[in-house]
Amino acid sequence: MEFFDVVLRQRACRSFTDQPVDESLIAQCLEAAIHAPSAENLQPWVFVVVREAERRDAIHQLNKKAWDEGVQAYAQSRYSPKFLKDITEGMEGGMRNAPVIFIVCGESPNGVDPTLLGSIYPAVQNLLLAASALGLGSAVTTLATMFDKELRELLALPDGVSPIAMVPMGWPARPLGAPRRRPLSERAHRDQFGAPW
Amino acid sequence: MEFFDVVLRQRACRSFTDQPVDESLIAQCLEAAIHAPSAENLQPWVFVVVREAERRDAIHQLNKKAWDEGVQAYAQSRYSPKFLKDITEGMEGGMRNAPVIFIVCGESPNGVDPTLLGSIYPAVQNLLLAASALGLGSAVTTLATMFDKELRELLALPDGVSPIAMVPMGWPARPLGAPRRRPLSERAHRDQFGAPW
Repeated sequence: MEFFDVVLRQRACRSFTDQPVDESLIAQCLEAAIHAPSAENLQPWVFVVVREAERRDAIHQLNKKAWDEGVQAYAQSRYSPKFLKDITEGMEGGMRNAPVIFIVCGESPNGVDPTLLGSIYPAVQNLLLAASALGLGSAVTTLATMFDKELRELLALPDGVSPIAMVPMGWPARPLGAPRRRPLSERAHRDQFGAPW
Repeated sequence: MEFFDVVLRQRACRSFTDQPVDESLIAQCLEAAIHAPSAENLQPWVFVVVREAERRDAIHQLNKKAWDEGVQAYAQSRYSPKFLKDITEGMEGGMRNAPVIFIVCGESPNGVDPTLLGSIYPAVQNLLLAASALGLGSAVTTLATMFDKELRELLALPDGVSPIAMVPMGWPARPLGAPRRRPLSERAHRDQFGAPW
């Protein structure tokens, strides 16, 4: 697919069919991810690709626990009805059906500092874009990272490797529309703040 | 350009020709950037596109100050000779020649927290990829953000808008080779850490 078609259409998918994702497609997504730039080119990302049903379910339970124990209340007070419905459906089963969950971790002696996040999220973005380019759906969530200890145990993560984001991936249950964005003129400025693009 | 050709070849460029970058190309890069996903779809990015020569020079002076006053010493003790040479050339003039510098900021009442960084860096990555797709060179630096007060003044940034990263952009002075990466088997695991992909 053409680059700009991918980048302008990529959006969150939280509902998947039960069709599995070929190993070769997962590898293509991972290759895209590790080609992201990183601070000092340290490539501090660690990907745990979870396909085992039991382990996926355990991750889903952690996400759901985070949702039920606080995030949902926060979301209800802040999100638009449409966005809330989409997220809630994802939590109630949609994301559970994703045949693959990528746990994106960062490896650093300094812990999860801004430099590490600046190196990990470009790789996450490459992962999402590659999925889109292949027709796959994906989304980002950080919910289960609220339970760092449980997640570490589940994935056998060593000290110094911290879970940062999760990306469920699979074949979209329904076609995804185009993403909506505030216009450029509201978010970009010429030479200094206050001179809209 | 085809998506995977772009994503697998994108790499840092720190030396530019003196050819300007068309307004329409800058807009295409910005459009790609604002199509990134963000936490709660808040789209908290603010781009200041600096093309005025004086202001670009002032930003360069801040980068250079950060380099001279500490980062260079750190780099000399840690970077490979080749990487250090590339960065040093960039600091000594290469990046100064970039006809455009994007200052990517984040807007949040919570300041620069992990959620904000997780929303800003995907947009930065889209910006870099779009530049690559158009044949432009770019890089990311955070050097001048060490001087938050000076940078805010220079760009007239209001409270609540924080500079996070800078992306110089222009036409590459020389062809860029393919990026080198540690192999997937070292950075990806199956189902749990310790089972290489």
